[in-house]
Amino acid sequence: MSETALKTLNERMGEVLDLHAALHLLEWDQEVFMPPRGAEARGEQLATLSALAHRLFATDEMGGLLDTLLAAGDQIDPDTAALVRETHYDYEKATKLPEEFVERLARECSRAYETWHKARKASDFAMYQPHLETLVDLLKQKADYLGYEGTPYNALIEEYERGMTADQIDALFAEVAAGQRDIVARIMAAEQPDLGWCDQRWDVQQQNAFTVRVLKDIGYDFDRGRQDPSVHPFTTNFDLHDVRITTRFDEKNLFSALAGSIHEGGHALYEQGYQEKDRRTVLAAAPSLGIHESQSLLWENMIGGSLPFWQHYLPILREFHPGQLDAVSPEQAYAALNAVKPSYIRVDADECTYNLHIVLRFEIERALIEGTLTVAEIPEFWNATFKKYIGLDVPDDAHGCLQDIHWSHASMGYFPTYALGHLYAAQLLEQIEADVPELWAQVGTGDFAPLLGWLREHVHHCGRRKLPGDIVKDATGKDIAAKPYLDYLEKKY
Amino acid sequence: MSETALKTLNERMGEVLDLHAALHLLEWDQEVFMPPRGAEARGEQLATLSALAHRLFATDEMGGLLDTLLAAGDQIDPDTAALVRETHYDYEKATKLPEEFVERLARECSRAYETWHKARKASDFAMYQPHLETLVDLLKQKADYLGYEGTPYNALIEEYERGMTADQIDALFAEVAAGQRDIVARIMAAEQPDLGWCDQRWDVQQQNAFTVRVLKDIGYDFDRGRQDPSVHPFTTNFDLHDVRITTRFDEKNLFSALAGSIHEGGHALYEQGYQEKDRRTVLAAAPSLGIHESQSLLWENMIGGSLPFWQHYLPILREFHPGQLDAVSPEQAYAALNAVKPSYIRVDADECTYNLHIVLRFEIERALIEGTLTVAEIPEFWNATFKKYIGLDVPDDAHGCLQDIHWSHASMGYFPTYALGHLYAAQLLEQIEADVPELWAQVGTGDFAPLLGWLREHVHHCGRRKLPGDIVKDATGKDIAAKPYLDYLEKKY
Repeated sequence: MSETALKTLNERMGEVLDLHAALHLLEWDQEVFMPPRGAEARGEQLATLSALAHRLFATDEMGGLLDTLLAAGDQIDPDTAALVRETHYDYEKATKLPEEFVERLARECSRAYETWHKARKASDFAMYQPHLETLVDLLKQKADYLGYEGTPYNALIEEYERGMTADQIDALFAEVAAGQRDIVARIMAAEQPDLGWCDQRWDVQQQNAFTVRVLKDIGYDFDRGRQDPSVHPFTTNFDLHDVRITTRFDEKNLFSALAGSIHEGGHALYEQGYQEKDRRTVLAAAPSLGIHESQSLLWENMIGGSLPFWQHYLPILREFHPGQLDAVSPEQAYAALNAVKPSYIRVDADECTYNLHIVLRFEIERALIEGTLTVAEIPEFWNATFKKYIGLDVPDDAHGCLQDIHWSHASMGYFPTYALGHLYAAQLLEQIEADVPELWAQVGTGDFAPLLGWLREHVHHCGRRKLPGDIVKDATGKDIAAKPYLDYLEKKY
Repeated sequence: MSETALKTLNERMGEVLDLHAALHLLEWDQEVFMPPRGAEARGEQLATLSALAHRLFATDEMGGLLDTLLAAGDQIDPDTAALVRETHYDYEKATKLPEEFVERLARECSRAYETWHKARKASDFAMYQPHLETLVDLLKQKADYLGYEGTPYNALIEEYERGMTADQIDALFAEVAAGQRDIVARIMAAEQPDLGWCDQRWDVQQQNAFTVRVLKDIGYDFDRGRQDPSVHPFTTNFDLHDVRITTRFDEKNLFSALAGSIHEGGHALYEQGYQEKDRRTVLAAAPSLGIHESQSLLWENMIGGSLPFWQHYLPILREFHPGQLDAVSPEQAYAALNAVKPSYIRVDADECTYNLHIVLRFEIERALIEGTLTVAEIPEFWNATFKKYIGLDVPDDAHGCLQDIHWSHASMGYFPTYALGHLYAAQLLEQIEADVPELWAQVGTGDFAPLLGWLREHVHHCGRRKLPGDIVKDATGKDIAAKPYLDYLEKKY
């Protein structure tokens, strides 16, 4: 009985996941190769396939299959149990929201997004305000549909970071904010490195060739992926054997494309590292955005932004840009890559101030959903809190509370995952340093295999078998904490 | 009643066509950018989406909608009538074959294809024979399912060239074969041009830049398409505003990429030229392969292979390959591009011998389906007929009856469309010369707008409103004939 159910479930889910793969290809192509006039049709295709994927998944038949398999309980092996549990989780998510509500939310988002664009351009929050008010109301309704314990904001967090609660994040972020403010203040009081040598033209072809070299070294498999340029770097996959990344080239910036490549490479190593037996099932995926982000940040900041890394790669990079780096030392490259400078825009923020941007957004989101802050009060709250955490006076809303796209997509609960990614990464790294004592010597010779092996075993192979908290706890023996990240920053800066 | 039915039909068909667009993208990506290890998952995705597209189309609901609309008859406008007629045609095609039969055919094709590969490599027809026998049997069954008048081969022709019959093709091809044999014999008796200058290395980047220049000149819109390299050149579209082509570069051959680009460019001009109002309906397509091929051949051979074209473009091409073409005249470029040399392989054949390869295949296919030739007799028949038409002794089956992939896909009735494309193109060109008296002077200055305008009006805008025969007849006032093509060859060679 349950064997037949499992077979049917896998067949149905195979179809749904094939549709998702096609959706990912439609999106990838849209960002990377689609000619401009293809946009209208692409929008229709995306809408159709995504509705179809939902229609094929959220069926009564699927519900029945899942009930049968859940009832089988202990009689099924752990892999199947995980498969059923995760598919059931997705099914609940897909069926809890009434269709009219999903459609209304999509409609309001598309209006809000359009207005947000104009409002940001005009730096006019009042223009955007009514749309955001509608979205906050809808998000509160969404939380009710989804169900929650404690604050309704928990329901929204659960969408992106499973098993995490607003109170947990609150505690972590309080420690993070205090610690990072302190570190930033000390850095800013000290002498700043001279970055004058960075101000050159860096050939883009050569930049690309160097990113490919580094990607191959860290273990990204080009037989199972490719890198292309796009406006915003991203990672996507159509299968664990076809994981593609993009990066962005800037001939005035030696490090931006490289940072993008290593960051997306970190995501891609994760996705290329799912288990073969999980192919075409929901298990071949990350359990949360924060865990996914931990992999990109670990490679980008902690490895690619380490001194041993530059002791190995600076001589190699010199060959890619002949004559331009002769007078530059590994220490100078390291300093340039890790320069700290408080600024208004989150996406341009350095590693030391980044989380402070996130804490601000978390506080606003939670207060909006809990009703202790109105949308109208956002600008004032933003500017005051920004001053407190980052120490700058926000000149206008375009450089303040209008800068991010996320809220216009009704994505609240999403921002915290960025900061959690930093914390997860630091806690994992601390353990890796203990488990792989030669880590930094290996990085210093461009040998990343032991590090990748550790991540494969403790993170990548899990797929969705474990929740984020369990991945961290099983790998490090401890619950997620802020201290490893603060220690990491303390040591580095 | 019929208005509601039309609305529902358009919604359902929009979904089906969006799935087809996604399928085209999956295929395009597979040929152009997919990393090698992505193949397995891509096969699954293609199978799922194509089954899904069929499942969503071949429904009882769709049948009912079409019946309602067909019953509305005269009350609907001509555009809607064409839409209903063509959708109904596709529906019949999709529902006439029992599912088990379609699955069996697919299974046998995949076996035949695998064996064909090995058999061609070993030049061992006996190895392939049992598979081809099975496929011929299945094709006879298929003809019975589809229904036909006259010979069962007509049912297969109808799949690719609607409204055309074996007898009509027979009559056209008899004239074509006699005429072309005669022309080829005369050319071969004359002195051959010296092509020694072609034997240089031609920079591939420059070749690409030149193809882009020519594509833009002939009217291919890069805002609604793009060109990439691939092993086999092809054209695909995801919408009339996103029509992409590929070509193949060979640094030893100055003309192969250009010929590929203009050929695919001809296909692409057609697809970019469907009417806006036909977007996301079955009308935004060609009524047959032969008509589609007429557009690529007209641009590739008749325009790109004309002397005025080279009088204009040779000086431009010289700038792309500095110093390499100084001593070459437009006449020499023209002669090189149009060199005639009987050879064994169809895909390498020149314009003068090409149709002779097709006539041979047509004779074999018809005889197989009508039962007057057995599969075992193919090699002997092939070699004798090849000798008669092309004048060469076939050295082995790899260079003879094993060379083409088509039969292993159970594609019989397909080959004739290649030759019909030549005939359609020549007959259209004859009319264009009459309607646009300045045609060759315009081509000689790189002005292709009047030619493209004519094709848009008489061919592209039709989409599937007219059958192939009607397109030719309405545009030229005459039924399709062999004479214009023979006249064209006569004049050119």
